[in-house]
Amino acid sequence: MTGMSSDSKQQYDVAIIGAGYEGGLLGAILAYKGVKVLMVDNSIHPRFALGESTVRHTFRLMKIIGERFGVPEIKDKFSSASGLHTSVAASCGEKRNFGFIYHREGQHQNPTEATQLVIPPFREGYEAHLFRQDIDSFLTYTAVRYGATVKYRTSVNNVEIDGSGVRLGTAAGEEFRARYVVDASGSFGVLSRALNLRDNPPRLKLNTRCLFTHMIDVKEYDDLVLPNGVPRYPERWYNGTCHHIFDGGWLWVIPFNNRKGSTNQLVSVGLSYDNIRFPRPKDMTPEQEWASFLSKYPSINEQFKDAKPVRDWISSDRLQTSSKQSVGDRWCLTAAAHGSGFIDALFSRGLASSTEVLNALASRLLKAVKDDDFSREKFEYLERVEEANMRINDRLTSTSYACFRSFETWNAWYRIWALGVGLGDLRLTSAYRKYKKSHDESVLPDAEEPMGLFFSQHAGYGELFESCAQQVDAMIAGSASTQQTADEIFRRMRECKFAPPSLKLGDPNAKFINQGTIPAIFQTLKWLMTSAPPEIKEMSMGIMADINPMSPHSRWRTKPALT
Amino acid sequence: MTGMSSDSKQQYDVAIIGAGYEGGLLGAILAYKGVKVLMVDNSIHPRFALGESTVRHTFRLMKIIGERFGVPEIKDKFSSASGLHTSVAASCGEKRNFGFIYHREGQHQNPTEATQLVIPPFREGYEAHLFRQDIDSFLTYTAVRYGATVKYRTSVNNVEIDGSGVRLGTAAGEEFRARYVVDASGSFGVLSRALNLRDNPPRLKLNTRCLFTHMIDVKEYDDLVLPNGVPRYPERWYNGTCHHIFDGGWLWVIPFNNRKGSTNQLVSVGLSYDNIRFPRPKDMTPEQEWASFLSKYPSINEQFKDAKPVRDWISSDRLQTSSKQSVGDRWCLTAAAHGSGFIDALFSRGLASSTEVLNALASRLLKAVKDDDFSREKFEYLERVEEANMRINDRLTSTSYACFRSFETWNAWYRIWALGVGLGDLRLTSAYRKYKKSHDESVLPDAEEPMGLFFSQHAGYGELFESCAQQVDAMIAGSASTQQTADEIFRRMRECKFAPPSLKLGDPNAKFINQGTIPAIFQTLKWLMTSAPPEIKEMSMGIMADINPMSPHSRWRTKPALT
Repeated sequence: MTGMSSDSKQQYDVAIIGAGYEGGLLGAILAYKGVKVLMVDNSIHPRFALGESTVRHTFRLMKIIGERFGVPEIKDKFSSASGLHTSVAASCGEKRNFGFIYHREGQHQNPTEATQLVIPPFREGYEAHLFRQDIDSFLTYTAVRYGATVKYRTSVNNVEIDGSGVRLGTAAGEEFRARYVVDASGSFGVLSRALNLRDNPPRLKLNTRCLFTHMIDVKEYDDLVLPNGVPRYPERWYNGTCHHIFDGGWLWVIPFNNRKGSTNQLVSVGLSYDNIRFPRPKDMTPEQEWASFLSKYPSINEQFKDAKPVRDWISSDRLQTSSKQSVGDRWCLTAAAHGSGFIDALFSRGLASSTEVLNALASRLLKAVKDDDFSREKFEYLERVEEANMRINDRLTSTSYACFRSFETWNAWYRIWALGVGLGDLRLTSAYRKYKKSHDESVLPDAEEPMGLFFSQHAGYGELFESCAQQVDAMIAGSASTQQTADEIFRRMRECKFAPPSLKLGDPNAKFINQGTIPAIFQTLKWLMTSAPPEIKEMSMGIMADINPMSPHSRWRTKPALT
Repeated sequence: MTGMSSDSKQQYDVAIIGAGYEGGLLGAILAYKGVKVLMVDNSIHPRFALGESTVRHTFRLMKIIGERFGVPEIKDKFSSASGLHTSVAASCGEKRNFGFIYHREGQHQNPTEATQLVIPPFREGYEAHLFRQDIDSFLTYTAVRYGATVKYRTSVNNVEIDGSGVRLGTAAGEEFRARYVVDASGSFGVLSRALNLRDNPPRLKLNTRCLFTHMIDVKEYDDLVLPNGVPRYPERWYNGTCHHIFDGGWLWVIPFNNRKGSTNQLVSVGLSYDNIRFPRPKDMTPEQEWASFLSKYPSINEQFKDAKPVRDWISSDRLQTSSKQSVGDRWCLTAAAHGSGFIDALFSRGLASSTEVLNALASRLLKAVKDDDFSREKFEYLERVEEANMRINDRLTSTSYACFRSFETWNAWYRIWALGVGLGDLRLTSAYRKYKKSHDESVLPDAEEPMGLFFSQHAGYGELFESCAQQVDAMIAGSASTQQTADEIFRRMRECKFAPPSLKLGDPNAKFINQGTIPAIFQTLKWLMTSAPPEIKEMSMGIMADINPMSPHSRWRTKPALT
């Protein structure tokens, strides 16, 4: 049996190491725009990958990418959950909420201890749970459709870069030449290893590890019969990305089978631990560690009573990596290869960070190919955005792990995240709307100072975020109780001028956020027309265009809280 | 990173080597029935596999299996194309016909040279093009659901079988024990190699090779603008499994994207050659051989003008294998491992043969586990059915390759195949109908002498088949021209008493078979009520139950021939 021919003599414009989500998306854009693209991958499709939960930012960026670069497969099929489900992969699930259910060791769950961020049903439906084997191959095949060359089962083991170009040497002795090389190999970090860029240890505060698999016969948490009951919030927990949180870690439950029309029976399951407090046990297999975990959390145990893994558990050591540098003359690292793209699965920020960087990279690469200028300075923006994302995600995530200590701190701190995500989304939506009208590149998120997907560059929000994180630092240092910390965060939230009052951020009893009800929409509109700060008003212009109360997905009439 | 734990001490009832279509299906049935099943696989899902086109027999057998063993996933989701598309994999295509388009080297296709067997739209829709990565994992995960243990990335390198049981040793040094072992490793032939069962050379007349891949942007043959036009037959060629045939080989085109609702953009493409006349060229890559092939057949070239492979071409040497023996005390080989399950992709008989053997094996294994009797004689039926299938498929396929020599011989001989398939289906449908009513095992296809899926054990058909094949032998030997051979086959067909006259088998101008039109149905009913032989009458009882002219898939009103 023989594989593809080698065309070693060929000179490519851009070589991409890795044909996963990042490599496939970049390859599709560049190839569509006529760039001679080589993708080199050490494996082959189809294959398992993590990074399964989208956030508003992911599809918003995909809409911007579709509009900006024109690839029909991205514009028409890939920029909404509904398009994805219909035209890319019926194996994907639906995400109608971010759910956080708090558990205490040895006790059944207390149904008043849970928080939920409801995802309002915009025009295109909700968010998605990506069955990555189908997504990554779809993107790669789209790149192939537009002329990209893909070399599968090809390991790059040598990279030489000089003023004249890039030479990639492979384990099989082939050599490929390109004008520029992108490392999209994720945690493999082919280029960051070759160029000796990896920090050891990584320069992140967060230190977590994970065990994960796909399972069958996971029960719907909502349907369990538990001694204290199940929290009844606006959306069913099973209809979203569910985070079971506990002191020291959290468990993700990402169903692919939670949508009418899904052909998938599986659920992605992953257990993340604070790696300092709970390092990987040397004397346990992952199955044993999983069983031991379930034995400590009886309500979670109920959900997994019949569940079986359909593939081997994978147990990792520390998840975080970081690189000293992310761009250079003729090379760059994508978000995942750099380490900023995947800090921790918490809040599902990985795909969004990756997509943000790719949007910025694709436009710069197209210009570089045209101008034949691949110097570092032309790509310097990427380094800034990756560094900014790494910093803010590290702060956000490590503070969150600290807040897992008690429900009251979590209940307070999660609102800081929710506000940052919501305002960030508003800004991105506003940018997309303006761009769609004008095709003016200056309105795009990568046009200026890295705005990040989070709202942290907004002076007010940045200050709120950091001051609340410092409250948590004080708690970690032992100088404040969990209750004092929560109280202080709530107090600051009540003073916040740029958050819509309908969010009720400062009210500890308002444990879910549902901006999709008619009262909430009217309250927010009133606020926007009266006391909202001008920059929020400006971003909110036209938001109503995305709201369609007649959508078949609509939950506008959802009753308010039950707890 | 570590994988699953080893439970080497465990004693399984049945160990299955290979977790593909055969292993997954058998594992699902046995596990559902409470048998302790181990599945060992040297790779992991998801993954590419061949065997993509179903025939009526496949789903009929699946219906029998569903009814007989009760596995809900098989009964409710897997026993019809519509169930499959909706509940298993939207990535699968549809098969509304077997199409055979005849090509001559260096010439554009002559639209009068094509044959088509239309698949009438029964209650559940048409047949399917299976995107095997989704099918094989679905079956394996179903086995897991019911308690099967799966060891992925585990290579069996030692098999010991004695009176007390089976021990499997793995490359990683694990040992597994079972009471019985099934080799479902297909062409890997783990057990047939370990037990030194492989014939060298294989005892088959057929000697073919293949190169294959999945492609994107394959054009629909029906829409091409060709100098001589495109054959207009009742069904679009692209809506079925298309065989481009030529002197010396044939090309399969199996679209996954030919159905409203399909999420797949790919088409399976494979080029099969007579390996004696066209051995694998030593000086060409598969791509070069593909390009060289296209350059010889201009009409096919048009269909593939924009097509790109999305994965490496695989080029094989001789495809056929055979085993001296297929069952023994405590072991057996499935159809694919034995060699009978995959002779050649022609006529898509592989999945059906595999399923036929699995149906017989599962019932015998359930009994053996209960009785603790795993002796060879209890499984002897399998050997007979595998030998019979191998013999008939070899004769059918090698005769077909000979008939590729001219359109007239193909046009005559393909009817022998079509008749055998049609009558075999009728008998299987009849068996299913009776079994569904009575649950009487004696009506099932594996109850008696191997009936095979083909109709060859029917005295009249067996005689017709063999005498026509001998006509082709005479042509090969040079003692008859292609036209004389065709004429003689047509003559015999005109004399055939057990073929419905509506098939017009003896009329060289009736190049397609479409039993789905209202005139054909009435003509056949009339024949059944008057001059049909009693055994055909008996089998046809109740066939109308499967016909639903109001089906949304219906093509009952299709106009007759256009050529």
